[in-house]
Amino acid sequence: MTAREAVDRALAVVDEWEPSVHAWAHLDRARACAEADAVDARANARARAHEPGALHGLVVGVKDIVDTADQPTEYGSPIYAGHQPRADAGVVAQLRAAGAVVLGKTVTSELAVYTPGPTANPHRVTHTPGGSSSGSAAAVATGMVDVALGTQTAGSVIRPASFCGVFGYKPTYGTVTTAGVKPVAPSLDTVGWFARDPALLDRVRVALTGRAPAAPRSIAPRLALVRVELRLDTVEHAARAAAEAGAIVTELLLPAAFDGLGDDHTAVMAYEAVRSLAWEWTTQRERLSPNLQRVLATGETTSADDYDAIVRRAASARTACDDLFAAGGFDVLLTAAAPGEAPEGLGSTGDPRFARLWTLLGLPTVSVPGLTGPSGLPIGVQLVGRRGADAELLACAAWLADVLPGAKRPRRR
Amino acid sequence: MTAREAVDRALAVVDEWEPSVHAWAHLDRARACAEADAVDARANARARAHEPGALHGLVVGVKDIVDTADQPTEYGSPIYAGHQPRADAGVVAQLRAAGAVVLGKTVTSELAVYTPGPTANPHRVTHTPGGSSSGSAAAVATGMVDVALGTQTAGSVIRPASFCGVFGYKPTYGTVTTAGVKPVAPSLDTVGWFARDPALLDRVRVALTGRAPAAPRSIAPRLALVRVELRLDTVEHAARAAAEAGAIVTELLLPAAFDGLGDDHTAVMAYEAVRSLAWEWTTQRERLSPNLQRVLATGETTSADDYDAIVRRAASARTACDDLFAAGGFDVLLTAAAPGEAPEGLGSTGDPRFARLWTLLGLPTVSVPGLTGPSGLPIGVQLVGRRGADAELLACAAWLADVLPGAKRPRRR
Repeated sequence: MTAREAVDRALAVVDEWEPSVHAWAHLDRARACAEADAVDARANARARAHEPGALHGLVVGVKDIVDTADQPTEYGSPIYAGHQPRADAGVVAQLRAAGAVVLGKTVTSELAVYTPGPTANPHRVTHTPGGSSSGSAAAVATGMVDVALGTQTAGSVIRPASFCGVFGYKPTYGTVTTAGVKPVAPSLDTVGWFARDPALLDRVRVALTGRAPAAPRSIAPRLALVRVELRLDTVEHAARAAAEAGAIVTELLLPAAFDGLGDDHTAVMAYEAVRSLAWEWTTQRERLSPNLQRVLATGETTSADDYDAIVRRAASARTACDDLFAAGGFDVLLTAAAPGEAPEGLGSTGDPRFARLWTLLGLPTVSVPGLTGPSGLPIGVQLVGRRGADAELLACAAWLADVLPGAKRPRRR
Repeated sequence: MTAREAVDRALAVVDEWEPSVHAWAHLDRARACAEADAVDARANARARAHEPGALHGLVVGVKDIVDTADQPTEYGSPIYAGHQPRADAGVVAQLRAAGAVVLGKTVTSELAVYTPGPTANPHRVTHTPGGSSSGSAAAVATGMVDVALGTQTAGSVIRPASFCGVFGYKPTYGTVTTAGVKPVAPSLDTVGWFARDPALLDRVRVALTGRAPAAPRSIAPRLALVRVELRLDTVEHAARAAAEAGAIVTELLLPAAFDGLGDDHTAVMAYEAVRSLAWEWTTQRERLSPNLQRVLATGETTSADDYDAIVRRAASARTACDDLFAAGGFDVLLTAAAPGEAPEGLGSTGDPRFARLWTLLGLPTVSVPGLTGPSGLPIGVQLVGRRGADAELLACAAWLADVLPGAKRPRRR
């Protein structure tokens, strides 16, 4: 299939879904077709030189917190209405150089924090798709794109992936460039992406990092079950299904070094955000949502001493976590991705609490779809990998997905 | 003095020096005066509320790698000719909120890497001012501004400070926001600044970080002398002067964990830079200097495994360094800032090698002026502090400056 054929097919799905889902902040069909034609022309030239792009014809959506040189980038904020960056973000340039086509820009919550955009959950449009990478998760769930870029500072990839029933992957902190991504909290901000197929998560990882591809698992993984404060049926279900398929599942109680770090994450995020967004905070305050103003006000009153103390605790927990993995009793952690199904209403993107700890620790995580909640909406489970062992993590995610009932595609009503 | 009076005075110095020094990438006098008037008006309103800005009337230059919402930001590259960012970088917004006035944008080398802009060393205009923060160091040395922002990824603050005979300070990595600063190598990129008075370095640090001010040293510090491969007279001179003034000076041989890390820094920088600058590299290559193309080509061929190995070694050295400081035998390290005086010619910004190791380790450093090289040009010495102990470092820098012969102001010929 040519890139142009892929884009034409994607645009037909957009016609079907976009009126009810509102996944796109910007989508210029003619521009997308022209980009696809250019990619095909380049691929034809390359094919003669036996160098087709590694992602040729992959149709991607880009969260509108990530700069694009040829499309507006509004960061989900009226402050940036019509804003046109001069350059592509590093990841966008890397995807394009590998032959991917950017279909358009997907809806982000305001400045990638909590105040939602218009996107609805394609499984039930009265429910949130999660956020802040709302449009990316919804665009992948409906099949409008193959892959979509998101970013995670708290739970902005894992939560929408869980709510929309797709794979969502957050790489090890620092392994994918954030240049050209509007910063929120730079010690946490991580570019991630969504796909319906775990193999695609890996192909994009290889293209962006130049690291080795994941090898499919020939034997069942060893899973360390990390139970959260509310014991979730879905996580128990996934653990049982994995055990029945041969996985060794042990329960892991996190050491005391981890206590309270999920909550501490909130303070780190606020402290850094009020500095990253100092211009918006000091000169455009009235154009920020009350919600974001509260976050930034918290950041302003958080003391450097408190921040430093949390950063030190997080560093200790990171070492403790590396030691846990190094002890070798398990391959990945299995835990909750979100507290349950996507909540009703579009006024909130849901609760990021089960993702925050792993974001603070910088560990690679995946939300694996395939389970369904009591009301019939999808629920993901979260796998957490060893720092830098992203290939192994994605192999485990593919293995686990195979033993779960399977993700349902949303149906249009 | 009002901000407007300060700006008027600064502009008179600009008239005197700019024709020979070329420190400015952009300077709109009317805009600077209007900004000063607005600051004064705000200060008058604030004075009635007993809340004057902490940096009221401070005249600052901003390296043209740092975004400004009201002035073009060209990153020292023809690719960005006329580029007008939508927002101020976080640090610029913080400075302005504290009452500082941005006089204009100072010359940076191309994309803050090695290819120089037009700036000359004010002490001898046939010599380089150092880089990449060339215009900032020269603007401070001549008195055109009180303070100027720079950035350091290799030695871009410490080296020009040494060559221009001013204080240059690079804070502990991660303590000052880099939001809105064009990224080169995000694990290294650090915002720093220049001043003629070490007390000003500290006032800006307090305003940007909200941390406690430095307390002047009542007793002489303990210095650990770290000799570099060529034993420099200036470093020996500084050590002797400090010892004569009561400092305890011991020689420190760096542990084996540090071997080769200065060179390894170059690989980390190149690896990250080709990802940060992926758009420029893949779509604008012919508009990059041959020098920068070489750096990015190196980055493209550096393997992820090699990069990871260096990152691990650097982490070990960071721990080793923290342990050295924790052992408590000294307050700061004393070492070379640059291999000597500013080299002749404007085609190169000089050698960053004595700064690279400390950048990779993320430690706070200061170049302290006050010594003169064999040809009569200024030379700084570098103090390196404990991670996070920036206040103590700046107190030691002020103490050391007092016992050195003293920085000469450049004289216009």
